[in-house]
This record gives sequence, C-alpha cells and structure tokens, in this order.
Amino acid sequence: MKITCTTRELLEAVNTVSKAVAVKPPAPILSGIFLKAEGSSLEIEANNLDIGIRTKISANTEVPGSIVVSGKYLQEMARKLSGDIVSISYDDEAKVARLQSESISFKMLALNVEEWVHIKEPEVEVSFALPAVTFKNLIRKTVYACAHDESRPMFTGCLLQIDGNKITMVGTNTHRIAIMHETVADNLGEMSYIIPSKALGELARLADDSGDNNVTIRCSSKDIDFTFDNVYIKTRLLSGDFPPFEKVIPKEAITTVRVDTMDLLAAIDRVGLISRETDYKTIRFAIDKEGLHLSSTSPDIGNAEESIMAAIEGEDIDIAFNVNYLIEALKVIDTKICVIKLSGRLKPADIREADRDDFIYIVTPIRTN
Amino acid sequence: MKITCTTRELLEAVNTVSKAVAVKPPAPILSGIFLKAEGSSLEIEANNLDIGIRTKISANTEVPGSIVVSGKYLQEMARKLSGDIVSISYDDEAKVARLQSESISFKMLALNVEEWVHIKEPEVEVSFALPAVTFKNLIRKTVYACAHDESRPMFTGCLLQIDGNKITMVGTNTHRIAIMHETVADNLGEMSYIIPSKALGELARLADDSGDNNVTIRCSSKDIDFTFDNVYIKTRLLSGDFPPFEKVIPKEAITTVRVDTMDLLAAIDRVGLISRETDYKTIRFAIDKEGLHLSSTSPDIGNAEESIMAAIEGEDIDIAFNVNYLIEALKVIDTKICVIKLSGRLKPADIREADRDDFIYIVTPIRTN
Repeated sequence: MKITCTTRELLEAVNTVSKAVAVKPPAPILSGIFLKAEGSSLEIEANNLDIGIRTKISANTEVPGSIVVSGKYLQEMARKLSGDIVSISYDDEAKVARLQSESISFKMLALNVEEWVHIKEPEVEVSFALPAVTFKNLIRKTVYACAHDESRPMFTGCLLQIDGNKITMVGTNTHRIAIMHETVADNLGEMSYIIPSKALGELARLADDSGDNNVTIRCSSKDIDFTFDNVYIKTRLLSGDFPPFEKVIPKEAITTVRVDTMDLLAAIDRVGLISRETDYKTIRFAIDKEGLHLSSTSPDIGNAEESIMAAIEGEDIDIAFNVNYLIEALKVIDTKICVIKLSGRLKPADIREADRDDFIYIVTPIRTN
Repeated sequence: MKITCTTRELLEAVNTVSKAVAVKPPAPILSGIFLKAEGSSLEIEANNLDIGIRTKISANTEVPGSIVVSGKYLQEMARKLSGDIVSISYDDEAKVARLQSESISFKMLALNVEEWVHIKEPEVEVSFALPAVTFKNLIRKTVYACAHDESRPMFTGCLLQIDGNKITMVGTNTHRIAIMHETVADNLGEMSYIIPSKALGELARLADDSGDNNVTIRCSSKDIDFTFDNVYIKTRLLSGDFPPFEKVIPKEAITTVRVDTMDLLAAIDRVGLISRETDYKTIRFAIDKEGLHLSSTSPDIGNAEESIMAAIEGEDIDIAFNVNYLIEALKVIDTKICVIKLSGRLKPADIREADRDDFIYIVTPIRTN
C-alpha cells in the first residue's frame, strides 16, 4: 500500500472513527484502525464490536492495499504531522507502516490485517431517512437521561418510536425520563427500536445538521446503521420491552411553577454546591406564593439557601430532587421560561418548555423528612 | 465577627492563599483558612506548615473577630457568589459562618479558631529587596529543573546565591542543572539559601512584576519570607551543601550546534511522541555537516525520525538525551537561536541562549548502544 492525502483529512477521519477503537480490547486487533487504499480514496474503519465506524477520504493511490495499525498511535501521529500532505506506505517485509510529512517520518509496527474484524452490516429489513437536524435534536433532548450501569441493558439506550410522521425518542434511568417528540414530512410507517446511547452520542457528535442533510437508517431485528455525509456507523440494537412511558406523565397538577430557565439553573448550580457533596444529591424546593426557595444541607459542611422569583399557581408545597437530574434537564430547555408541574411531594414532577409540549421531562422526587 | 467586602477581592484573596491550604492534613485545622476582621481590613491566612501565605483586603467591619473555615468550601462558595458585595458573619452559638450575597446564603460549620496555627515569622537576621521582575525571571528559568522526589530534600529547592550585585539561581535534579544569573543595582553582600520550589512557584504565580515592584526577603538560618503587594509568603529553608555548580559546566566543546529554538522544540515534540512511551524517554541526536537528525525508537510501537537544519561546527557526533529534559529547557529559552555545545557522547551538554551567558543549562546524556 502507498498513498498520499491531506494531513487535515487524515486527522479528521481518524478522529471520526476514534471512539470505535477499543481501549481495553479482549483481542489486540480491536485496538487497531483499518486503512484500505483503492482508486482515489482511503477507507478508514474502526470496530470494537459494540460500535463500528467507517469513513472515507480522497487520496492518491500509488499502490492499493489494506493495513491495520494501532488506533491510538495513528491518532497521535496524525496530530503531530507538520506538513499539509502526508504519505502513508507499507513495508510488507518489515510489517511496518510509514507516515511521512515534510521532514518528519513515523514508522509503526502493523497489526495482522488478516485478523481484522470488518463491520458486519445489518441484513436490512427496514430503511428510512430522517433530517439530521431532527435526529440530532431528538438525541440532545433525551440521551443524557439514559442509565450508565449495565444491570438493565435496555436503559443504556434510547427508545426511537416511529408512528406515521411522528417521531418520539425516550431516555430513562427509571428515576427520570426524558421524552422528545418531532414530526417529519413523510409517513414512515410504524416501528420502534432501542438504540445504545453511545452510538447516538457518536451520531450527534459527527452528523452535520446544517442545510437539508439527512441521516439514512437501516435496521434488521438485531442491528441498526446510520449513514450521513461520509460516515457510516453501525451498532447492535438493545432488546427488551420499554416501559409504557406515556403512563408516567402525571395527569393533573396541584402546583404549577413558571420560572426563568437560566435563573433557576444558576440558582440550582449555586445551592447544589452543598448537595453535590452528599450521598443523595438532594436539593429542596419550598414553594409558596412568594416564589421558589431552594436549599440543601450537609451535616459535614453546612447549608445553602436561595430564593428566586417565580409565578406560582396552586398549593404551597415542599419537595426534594436529585440536583443533577434537574440540572441536566434545564440545560436542554431552549425556552426562556420553563414550567414545572407538581402533583404532590412524593409524586413525579413534570418539567416542560413554556407553551410547548414536544419536550417532557418527568422526575421522581426524593423522599425526605 | 461581621464584615462586608467585594466578592471579587474575597475570591482573589482566597485563591491567593489556596495553595497553602493542606489537602490531606495531619490535623483538620490545617485544611482551614483563617479570617480576621479588624478596622477596615480582612486578613486571610492559610498555613500547611510547609508554606504559609497571608493577604489582606479592604472590608467594612461591623463586628471585629476571627474565624477558621474549610479552605476548600470557602473557595468553592466564593466562586459561586452571585452579587458584587458579600457579607461574612459568624454565629457564635451555632459555630456557623455565613456568606450572603444577593439572594444566595451559604452557611459553613466553623473550625475551632483556638487551634489555628499562625504563620511563624522568621527571627530576621538578613533583609533585602529584589525587583519582582528579576526574581520571577530567576525562578522561571530554573525551578522546573528541581527534583520532585524527597529522597534528597535539598534538590527539591533552588539555590539562591547572592554575591554583591550578582544574583544566581540554580535548580537541579542531579541529571540536569539550570543556572540563571541576574544583576541588580545594589550591593547586597554575600549569602546563599536553598528555597523550596513550591514556595518559589507560588511567588512566581502571585507577584506582580510590572513597573518597579519589589519583593522584600527576610531570612533566619531556618526560615525565609517574601513580602510583595498585599501578599506575605513564608517557608522553611532547605539545608545541605549544594554541589559546586560552576564545576559541572564543560570547559571545551568538540561540536557546537546553532539552531532555531522553536524549530528544535517542535521537532523534539514530534519525535518525542515515541520516546514518551518508553522507559528512558530517549531521543537520539545524530549531528553531521548536514544538520541535526533526531530519532526515537520503541520496540512496541515503532520509531520516529526528523532532520532539521542547523549550523554545525566541529566533529560529527551521536548523542542521546531524556526528551523531557530538553523540552523543559527549550521552553524557557527566550532567543530565536539557541546554542548547544557538546564535549563527547557521554559528557554533559551545555545549552544556552545565542550570544548570552546568563542562562546555562547542563544536561547529562543517556548512554545508548
């Protein structure tokens, strides 16, 4: 193999696939990046078996061929290259790949290309496209709410539910649930999938949502892939019966709070200084006609209190939440005012953007004395 | 105690003393910050026994008094305050200090002020002043060369040697030595001290070197203190016989290299990508009439090579160094061109700024096959 390409494109491509390089791989080959030179392009692929990412850049191929090299060092070397153009060549005998740019030359021991595990594309049953801007918004509003622990794998992913031209994405760790609705122009039929949050995160990081860009999605019963720009991402689907999320949305409220989103976020961040050091991350809301009184207490440190103005309707109430669950939701609220509806001190709270119902965040309170 | 002051000044003062707050203290009181309100000022002091720092800000005292509170939380709370003015008050009965600014109120459990260990000022034997700009430059050019391990405590500090109007500072970890000479207007007599590098680092961080600012220095046989602007720093002196550093400066060179400082630094950074992953951090220089050929090798990764242009006088030579020792020295070289003098492949190299002899860096090569 022997090619030349631009240093910038090589670095971008290596960064694109980097999150699919295994960090502590069961087999050394999974820590590699696969490069394939053919015609006027260089294909670059990483696959840690959970997620596979592939991309392509333009290149001048002198000798076609494929190699696998350490993903970590390829990325670090690509960052350090000094010139605009880089040549990549492979010495078959020494099993060494060489990157050369201006006066710097890196040589890397190559891994055995025969061992490379190519991304296995799904046997397509369904295929559809979503506008990139819609898909990225669905992800941004919900993916942070997923569980991190693997004890119930289903909750480490988001539910994508399609019903005609209505698209809903849902993330939950069972203590809170984030629901986002979007509509698209086309009728896409009916389907639902649970997609690992890591793959969604990569999609949100890599997809360009300017203009009319689309993400093409293909699914089998087990796998899903996403194609956009020059990037291909494939991941497994998660299996399980996602809880009926519509049922957890409270029907009625006894207290409704309308408050400036940024003011509330800033106050929670300040008062939360104390909460964050405690086991339960508890922040208390005392709500009365005068406004919202936030407080948190730690027996070892002290306490913090702050009152902020809010428009309150309904009964006075005392209620407590996990401070991080509030901050994460408020960070994705895009309206100046947010609305918090409470149905009781031990009943789930409902947080939405003012005068909009496409984003719904339900959070279970913490029981306090 | 009850005072008001500006939030900005409080935060600056807390940041100033913060490095003297003990992180894992043998006694809890050492993790505190001492505040003393009196007249129109608030004194702020931290003392981890290795280093003590004190500063003062203007304040409106309603009730004079002293308290000790957690340094960590005072700093975090001061950062979070929302208004321009903060009031600090102490509730004697509850033993709680309160910070209030606009609508936010923090309460902190206070530590026992009776247990506070005040900074013990040295019994002054000698006192003199140095321009802040001179002192900071002496520190910048040498302090990174000190040892970090405490096995020979003397080398965790820099030697400050005063001979009339000549000031010399020296830092070494025995594998390399950085020497910086400055001259001052006054004849200061003859003396020498070994000052812990942590205190010098704080001095360099905090002293304002604009204009004609001076640092006043007072010493006993055991302790030294520094006063500048509103800041007071005190530390122990290190004892020991510093090696005669003038003797390690090579007398003659067989090869002299004149090279662009930034080009060399960038090339070493690139080639060093490989060295940094190896045990000895070895970078090789092959020097011949054509220039400087840098290389490094790791049996697990591969190798890197780069050639840069340089003006060479004398014999061809192969020599190897610790890559970090070169990078640290080149980073403090202020001239476009630097000069490297070599006396043999196993003899110390001498690195200086072109056409200047105030900074001298001597580094021992690594023996290679």
